[in-house]
Amino acid sequence: MVHNTKLIHFEIHGGAYGNLIAIESGKGIPFEIARVYYIFGVENKVRRGFHSHINLYQILICVSGNVKIEISNPFEKEIVELNHPSEGLLIGPFVWREMFDFSDNSVLLVLANEHFCEEDYIRDYEVYRDLAKEYFERLEI
Amino acid sequence: MVHNTKLIHFEIHGGAYGNLIAIESGKGIPFEIARVYYIFGVENKVRRGFHSHINLYQILICVSGNVKIEISNPFEKEIVELNHPSEGLLIGPFVWREMFDFSDNSVLLVLANEHFCEEDYIRDYEVYRDLAKEYFERLEI
Repeated sequence: MVHNTKLIHFEIHGGAYGNLIAIESGKGIPFEIARVYYIFGVENKVRRGFHSHINLYQILICVSGNVKIEISNPFEKEIVELNHPSEGLLIGPFVWREMFDFSDNSVLLVLANEHFCEEDYIRDYEVYRDLAKEYFERLEI
Repeated sequence: MVHNTKLIHFEIHGGAYGNLIAIESGKGIPFEIARVYYIFGVENKVRRGFHSHINLYQILICVSGNVKIEISNPFEKEIVELNHPSEGLLIGPFVWREMFDFSDNSVLLVLANEHFCEEDYIRDYEVYRDLAKEYFERLEI
């Protein structure tokens, strides 16, 4: 997968009473949960995201419906479809992300390891490309 | 409302690109998030819950569809319908809860202030009733 991303499978506790998935902060996921947000009511033709973070780690889970996530850096690009509540996509620093193909009534739940911080965003792709090249070349990937 | 429960309204950041609701751990909600879980795929006739907690605080949010929550103690009973991602139901100690009338494709997201701890559950109603009477009488409600 694209560097600084990973798929995480969450165990389903299922039965006649329905299904439950539990995520313990700092256990089974690589960070403490500082922020939870969810995206809903996105029309199918909308594409959103268009940013990277400098430090933030997030886990994206499509808890209803399905959505595609394009994750990339200046050297790699991949599209991940999230279509089940048991699949989480971990995204770390310097990954450019775009979300698209939201199905009707889809809900994208996101867990993040830091509170909201505008300074951690890179929203300009040219700026991102230069910083990401430097970042990934330093990692010698 | 039933003691130790409260409705919380979350601000929607909406627009042409859809809607986003963000919940910061310990800000705007009265606790740090230690655990996140979600319940899905519950058939309409199923009733679940049937327990109280001794110390745990939780916020229930129906992020897709709708569901009814019966919250009670030995002195009070109320049914709350959760039908929008912007409405959260805070439930604290010694509240008996039962969840029912799950709509098709409903997803109930829950944020909790502690990791899973079986010792914090009271699952026997008779035991609950006695402990809750003592607890609420001590509070002189």
